[in-house]
Amino acid sequence: MMARLGMHTLTGERGLLFGGDYNPEQWPEHVWAEDVELMRAAGVNLVTVGVFSWARIEPEPGARDFGWLDRVLDLLGEGDIAVDLATPTASPPPWLGHRWPETLPVDESGHRLWYGSRNQFCPSSPVYRERALALVTDLADRYAGHPALALWHVGNEYTQICHCDESAKAFRTWLRERYGDLDTLNEAWGTTFWSQHYSDWAEIVTPRRAPYMINPAQRLDFWRFGSDALLAHYRAERDILRERTPDIPVTTNFMGLFKPVDYWSWAQEEDIVSNDWYPDPGDPLSPARTALTHDLMRGLAKGRPWLLMEQAANGVNGRPHNLPKPPGQLRLESLQAVARGADGLCYFQWRASRFGAERFHAAMVPPAGPDTRLHAEVRAHGQELRTLASVAGREVPARVAMVFDWANWWALEERGGPSDRLNATEQLLSYYLPFWERGVSVDVVPPWAGLSGYPLVVVPNLFLVSDRDAAGLTDYVRGGGVLVVGPFSGVVDPRAHVRTGRFPAPLREVLGASGEEWLPAPEDRPVRCRWAGGGEFAAHTWTELMAAEGAEAVAEFTEGDLAGRPTVLRHRTGRGVAWYVATMPEPTALGTLTARALADAGVTGVVAELPPGVEAVRRGDVLFLLNHGPTTVSVPIPHPARDLLTGSAAAGQVTLTPRAVVALRPSENDIEIIL
Amino acid sequence: MMARLGMHTLTGERGLLFGGDYNPEQWPEHVWAEDVELMRAAGVNLVTVGVFSWARIEPEPGARDFGWLDRVLDLLGEGDIAVDLATPTASPPPWLGHRWPETLPVDESGHRLWYGSRNQFCPSSPVYRERALALVTDLADRYAGHPALALWHVGNEYTQICHCDESAKAFRTWLRERYGDLDTLNEAWGTTFWSQHYSDWAEIVTPRRAPYMINPAQRLDFWRFGSDALLAHYRAERDILRERTPDIPVTTNFMGLFKPVDYWSWAQEEDIVSNDWYPDPGDPLSPARTALTHDLMRGLAKGRPWLLMEQAANGVNGRPHNLPKPPGQLRLESLQAVARGADGLCYFQWRASRFGAERFHAAMVPPAGPDTRLHAEVRAHGQELRTLASVAGREVPARVAMVFDWANWWALEERGGPSDRLNATEQLLSYYLPFWERGVSVDVVPPWAGLSGYPLVVVPNLFLVSDRDAAGLTDYVRGGGVLVVGPFSGVVDPRAHVRTGRFPAPLREVLGASGEEWLPAPEDRPVRCRWAGGGEFAAHTWTELMAAEGAEAVAEFTEGDLAGRPTVLRHRTGRGVAWYVATMPEPTALGTLTARALADAGVTGVVAELPPGVEAVRRGDVLFLLNHGPTTVSVPIPHPARDLLTGSAAAGQVTLTPRAVVALRPSENDIEIIL
Amino acid sequence: MMARLGMHTLTGERGLLFGGDYNPEQWPEHVWAEDVELMRAAGVNLVTVGVFSWARIEPEPGARDFGWLDRVLDLLGEGDIAVDLATPTASPPPWLGHRWPETLPVDESGHRLWYGSRNQFCPSSPVYRERALALVTDLADRYAGHPALALWHVGNEYTQICHCDESAKAFRTWLRERYGDLDTLNEAWGTTFWSQHYSDWAEIVTPRRAPYMINPAQRLDFWRFGSDALLAHYRAERDILRERTPDIPVTTNFMGLFKPVDYWSWAQEEDIVSNDWYPDPGDPLSPARTALTHDLMRGLAKGRPWLLMEQAANGVNGRPHNLPKPPGQLRLESLQAVARGADGLCYFQWRASRFGAERFHAAMVPPAGPDTRLHAEVRAHGQELRTLASVAGREVPARVAMVFDWANWWALEERGGPSDRLNATEQLLSYYLPFWERGVSVDVVPPWAGLSGYPLVVVPNLFLVSDRDAAGLTDYVRGGGVLVVGPFSGVVDPRAHVRTGRFPAPLREVLGASGEEWLPAPEDRPVRCRWAGGGEFAAHTWTELMAAEGAEAVAEFTEGDLAGRPTVLRHRTGRGVAWYVATMPEPTALGTLTARALADAGVTGVVAELPPGVEAVRRGDVLFLLNHGPTTVSVPIPHPARDLLTGSAAAGQVTLTPRAVVALRPSENDIEIIL
Repeated sequence: MMARLGMHTLTGERGLLFGGDYNPEQWPEHVWAEDVELMRAAGVNLVTVGVFSWARIEPEPGARDFGWLDRVLDLLGEGDIAVDLATPTASPPPWLGHRWPETLPVDESGHRLWYGSRNQFCPSSPVYRERALALVTDLADRYAGHPALALWHVGNEYTQICHCDESAKAFRTWLRERYGDLDTLNEAWGTTFWSQHYSDWAEIVTPRRAPYMINPAQRLDFWRFGSDALLAHYRAERDILRERTPDIPVTTNFMGLFKPVDYWSWAQEEDIVSNDWYPDPGDPLSPARTALTHDLMRGLAKGRPWLLMEQAANGVNGRPHNLPKPPGQLRLESLQAVARGADGLCYFQWRASRFGAERFHAAMVPPAGPDTRLHAEVRAHGQELRTLASVAGREVPARVAMVFDWANWWALEERGGPSDRLNATEQLLSYYLPFWERGVSVDVVPPWAGLSGYPLVVVPNLFLVSDRDAAGLTDYVRGGGVLVVGPFSGVVDPRAHVRTGRFPAPLREVLGASGEEWLPAPEDRPVRCRWAGGGEFAAHTWTELMAAEGAEAVAEFTEGDLAGRPTVLRHRTGRGVAWYVATMPEPTALGTLTARALADAGVTGVVAELPPGVEAVRRGDVLFLLNHGPTTVSVPIPHPARDLLTGSAAAGQVTLTPRAVVALRPSENDIEIIL
Repeated sequence: MMARLGMHTLTGERGLLFGGDYNPEQWPEHVWAEDVELMRAAGVNLVTVGVFSWARIEPEPGARDFGWLDRVLDLLGEGDIAVDLATPTASPPPWLGHRWPETLPVDESGHRLWYGSRNQFCPSSPVYRERALALVTDLADRYAGHPALALWHVGNEYTQICHCDESAKAFRTWLRERYGDLDTLNEAWGTTFWSQHYSDWAEIVTPRRAPYMINPAQRLDFWRFGSDALLAHYRAERDILRERTPDIPVTTNFMGLFKPVDYWSWAQEEDIVSNDWYPDPGDPLSPARTALTHDLMRGLAKGRPWLLMEQAANGVNGRPHNLPKPPGQLRLESLQAVARGADGLCYFQWRASRFGAERFHAAMVPPAGPDTRLHAEVRAHGQELRTLASVAGREVPARVAMVFDWANWWALEERGGPSDRLNATEQLLSYYLPFWERGVSVDVVPPWAGLSGYPLVVVPNLFLVSDRDAAGLTDYVRGGGVLVVGPFSGVVDPRAHVRTGRFPAPLREVLGASGEEWLPAPEDRPVRCRWAGGGEFAAHTWTELMAAEGAEAVAEFTEGDLAGRPTVLRHRTGRGVAWYVATMPEPTALGTLTARALADAGVTGVVAELPPGVEAVRRGDVLFLLNHGPTTVSVPIPHPARDLLTGSAAAGQVTLTPRAVVALRPSENDIEIIL
Repeated sequence: MMARLGMHTLTGERGLLFGGDYNPEQWPEHVWAEDVELMRAAGVNLVTVGVFSWARIEPEPGARDFGWLDRVLDLLGEGDIAVDLATPTASPPPWLGHRWPETLPVDESGHRLWYGSRNQFCPSSPVYRERALALVTDLADRYAGHPALALWHVGNEYTQICHCDESAKAFRTWLRERYGDLDTLNEAWGTTFWSQHYSDWAEIVTPRRAPYMINPAQRLDFWRFGSDALLAHYRAERDILRERTPDIPVTTNFMGLFKPVDYWSWAQEEDIVSNDWYPDPGDPLSPARTALTHDLMRGLAKGRPWLLMEQAANGVNGRPHNLPKPPGQLRLESLQAVARGADGLCYFQWRASRFGAERFHAAMVPPAGPDTRLHAEVRAHGQELRTLASVAGREVPARVAMVFDWANWWALEERGGPSDRLNATEQLLSYYLPFWERGVSVDVVPPWAGLSGYPLVVVPNLFLVSDRDAAGLTDYVRGGGVLVVGPFSGVVDPRAHVRTGRFPAPLREVLGASGEEWLPAPEDRPVRCRWAGGGEFAAHTWTELMAAEGAEAVAEFTEGDLAGRPTVLRHRTGRGVAWYVATMPEPTALGTLTARALADAGVTGVVAELPPGVEAVRRGDVLFLLNHGPTTVSVPIPHPARDLLTGSAAAGQVTLTPRAVVALRPSENDIEIIL
């Protein structure tokens, strides 16, 4: 059953959305009219307004100045440009911190963080909460029913963590709800270690700067609390909006694989999942990393379309050295998002600011003005998007699921493990890459997702796993699924307690294998391994002392104390197959392993053979091929087809110059539609 | 018209000055007599006394102990050694911070900085100000008229920046003076960005630690304020001195290209420009970097002689690994300063301290005593300087000006630009190097300097430029000048607002060219370029998308998306020529460019051909040749001459062993003088 | 005369001790019985209990819960396992910091350090002191006379340094005792430098964050105070224990070459010296570094046996990437400690914790349980130790002494010297290595030790030396000793004042040589030298400008400005020989130098020839050979012998596989014992 509100609420009349953040308060009003004209020429049909307007709307405590915003919304509405209206609570005015310094956040060392930037609020501050909600209420009251209002954008890039006394108090409240009584908390935090027993709730503080390593359970709960404290504020704002505008969807912009906030818990509180994403032009893995992020957004949206809320039209300004995007890159990246389920493509921001910390962040209209290469590309891209209108609302079918979880991320990367080199997101990406290279679509899902619909499930790492989720994975295999589990999984429970016995304790049976030692490998030389069927490969960073208990050793170590011990295990059990990988194989070896797991699951890619750098993904009935590589290549295509972008027909194969994209709809399909 | 007071006030009777910091309070009095004897043997005629004597003079609040200082000055006076008497306000006694903790500075994170080191004062502290001025008043009253007193040395190496509440208050006062009203400040700081609008002056604080990037205009003004807050204190001390000793010149010691303090504004408040300079023996660019610094000092002194207040006789102790100076290096570096306009050569310090944080800083008398290689070199050098007495007061003629500005430095290196790799001082040095290698003297000047006397003006970078200064550069070219402008210039106005339109907006017309994108280049490979006349070269780090608008493309990019686009442009306009360089060329390419610009301007070096590592500079009628290279070389000289240092005659060429120096006065000149 | 209490108090009935930290409060009681059974099977005869039990014993202020601890001690006693009972004062419960925040330590920047970790106490806090001593009193009263109690373990790894106001007050008290009056302190600290004169004791604070480098004498005294402040607390606890249990020895666990605490002053306050030591498996110098540390412990114990209180059975978890120990390594490292004087081999910890910051620290019983490779090794090792029972109490004869001092360490590594690259412990290790490679045992001693019994004394560095200690070294040589002194020695006095005159001033006469300049060398190329007898070698980092004054130049520099100047000097004087090394020679050159000094002293190794990686050391009449290398090697042995570990006989040579160990007792000796 489709949710009542979602991207379809917006795209129904408009097709794909195109636009960006619009900050008219930075410009004299005469520029506004020019903006709307330029927007229309560029096919812009959605802009985000008001993200940083708190001080403009409420220049001093309790004041309200909505006149300018009325005029902006009217103008946009007249121009037929829909408005994503932000609650401007991400950046309080200086007067808030000045009059109520207790609203300013405090870092783990006790430093107060001041205004002069943005985000300077303690999420648990009652004063901040009260002021923010009063403003949101008035905003919603004023613009409920405004014809331009199409979407609510709550806050912005929720990020802030705080260690002040007010936060400590809120942390205690959160802990009371989680644990009920202090004995349970002491048990969960293992406070018999290092004499950390709490005798009174009042003693508990956030994990502030300490002489040595801090209790990992305390830190894990603080990660959880940090995400929830922000979420509580988001929900408070959202509830005000929902009450006043029940037909306007609500979103807040995510930031991809952003560690401090658990988007699984957040996404279910939104009508639309939206994301801000800035691929690094200097990172050769950017195309795959971006694809993974888009797939995560689709997962957060439960398969439904999502909104790319912010991308950059050219180089950003937050890195030490900000490489630009070559011509065509803007379009390539934007279409990659469409291919992976985005129904809206927005930029930060419409017109480059002349001042402020992001003066040098690229915009749709650069400082040099609209008569530029960059704006011409933006305009062409906006216009071209109309050719893809029929893609809106379509889903991206995937037969592979990849499991990712925030609590696991937090727990795995806590200091004091065997190695800091085992990183949750890099591990995820390394397992994602071979699927991306083969044109196999992947859904990113949480460990508690229903998995039975997927022939293949990959768990790159699940250091922290609950009994229930471990049982779910076991049932999945028994029911006929193919499961691949990466190293250092099944190690701790949700309290971050190590599970005793041979590991991975709760998955030992389904994997038909167990181990007794985690063995970080010397970093200056590869770990040599051999496939049982012949062929060597290298691994790195990590090994484990494993024994087969029903599983076959698909590969083994060939050197040192582990020589002859299994490194990759495959276990036929029930109606399914379970794989375990006790090391970090080099990419080609992960490719071999992936190919075998795909064969076990009977899954193939959307295109028979893909040149390196070419991404292939099907959305609805449209096959997108995107050339991220530096050379012109040919790609065989399965059916005669028509390229929606150009209207030209294709058969046998298509030729893709660097940064080229085709969106192929099978010709038969066309016929069907015609008939 | 020569200023009433200056180096000539000191050198008139003494010739070149030679000496160092003298801290007799660290030694028993019997050592003082030995010191004076050794000083006389070494030709010392100026010592700086009292820099760190506050606690000695005022051991507890309000006390005064001048007796020891009387004896020191008397002793020096009797030995005919002039005294540069310091106001000892750079390092307050512990009692100040203990009794008035609010005088201690606070860093941007809120950490209070304690005594136990030096410089622990808030420049805006009224208590510090009051205590310091009372002491200066008594000091001036006591020594006004003392026959040894020759120069005032106010404070020491002004450095300290503070973020305490008192500083925030002073910052607000400074901002009120700059902007008048809050609306103007809000406009200047672009506070519509990120909701930073100030509704009350009281809200404004210094740019303290914040969650994310801070407003660059706020930071730029804080740089300005920081320099001015220190300057205000300097002026307060100076005014007391001037009133009591109108005939004694006043200085404070600069530190070369020192970022926190805008020496252009300071130099005009001094009678004598003096500098502390410690070349790094491990830096192969030290000779040129030092030459540049000396030229800056000469620029600050408006071409008049200046004083090298501190240099090291051997290795320093502030770096992690402090390389020593090989024999002869001490003399080479000291004579380099003379060649570039110094009329005094002083060292930190006379006698090495036995205790304190600088025990291992080299001194004129090392811990091993006077019977050492080091002191023998010092003594010989001091004596030898008498041969150069006639150089005192002479100017260094330069036909090239290089523009450098502190506000630009601050603004350019603010985080959040396209790249952190574009550095104001390294950019300056890279443009300076080819002139130095060719023996072409350069004046370093501010952007608002009168330029019409220079055939060639080089602007390595002027990211921040005022309309007036841009107009000045334009007029300069129209009037017949040759101008070379480096990349990322003309970008922001003095409020750090990006100038809209094609860049460099205010110089577009004079350059006959404009651009629309700043494009940081990948750092792992060179940017390939080609001269229009043939020949390739490499550039790095930075490129721009430019178009000629009247200028000729002297060089173009040959690769990638910029292939065929201009990289170096040359524009004949009015009676002059303007060059623009849209990248960072490798040194040889900058050399080629420099040669062509010199040809445009009709400027040549003082010597026809210079071997690598040899520095050539003319001061008055004396040609200095200094061999910084590791091998013996021959240098052709323009005229028969006599080496002032040795008295020997030279013609045709001179041979320079490593670290050798000659000071050649043309023989004809001698004759003229004789006749 | 043997001290009344010592390791013999424990080993008399038990032979070598074997065990570890035991934290039963982390486990349900049913596990305790299993633990004791497993311990007995593994030969465990000593466990440390209660280190982190403060909160368990005193869950709220003033409460006492000893019942659980009674049961633990009873159970262990019944199992014949001796108890090393800890005073649990290293980690106060959260209630202490919560109710008395002034007990929390403060770092040099003013950050308060919170609970949630461990060690969060200010050593100078009266509240902490009072609470800790009350608890220790009750603990001692309760367990005095308990049959299992065998040893007191005071606190744990004393570490904490504090800059709070209470610490500043204690620092002032300490300084008053050291200096008597303020004039003496001002003189000692050289407060005439940078105007740091103190006019009142109340002005003095700890060396807190300051604008620039801090007074090195102040910092040196703060190092001294920091060690003494912790020692004062240790002594207060110890006195309570001694009074109540005069027959139970007292220890606290050291941490090898741990900079903040001067173990020379601590060791004399203990009955038993114990150490925690965790060799890094990734460091190729670990075997020698560990041997050096063990020799230091033996030195601290004045030659008597010591206790290895903590080692790891496998990888630790405090490093970024924690390499495991291969099979056999656990035994090899443990036996290395026996060979070098340890009579007890304990581990942190018995059973791996399931929670807390050290969940992933290896334990004797790993998370996977006792049926594992790791525990099998532990068990076999514990059992095997019985074969070495006769070694207990035996001494390690050494004819070479190596001087090491904490005050020197602190002073040498203070910032602001000629180079940060001259590091006290690395310098020590570099001089230790050639002895270790040659099987020559070394005693590590303080500079004030009686040296006349040693034919050879090595002083790798003694930057700080007192007049008395310098005279002691001089007398030692005159009396016939051979002395080797490394560079940058004899530089400052105990107040950190530079000694004036040619260096090393107080050793100049005995060395027959002196210098006048310390000359850090460029780091990118070697310093070339030549032995007088022929043969070249390289040195690095450091050189000195030396002149022979009676000594012969055994080696000289061959390049640059130092060419022909002595680099190694040898001086026959009195009845002895003194060497001075004015650089940092490469390892092979240090080997050559060591061989010559050994020849001067007539000292040889315990085995004629040692393959690389094999360690040879004699303890009592037993020769230990340990193969740390990666290959199987043969080692010639001096006499027919029996290997105590296996009982097998050996003659001529023994073959050692990687990680193999033999403990050879000469066969003749056996016969003598039998007869």
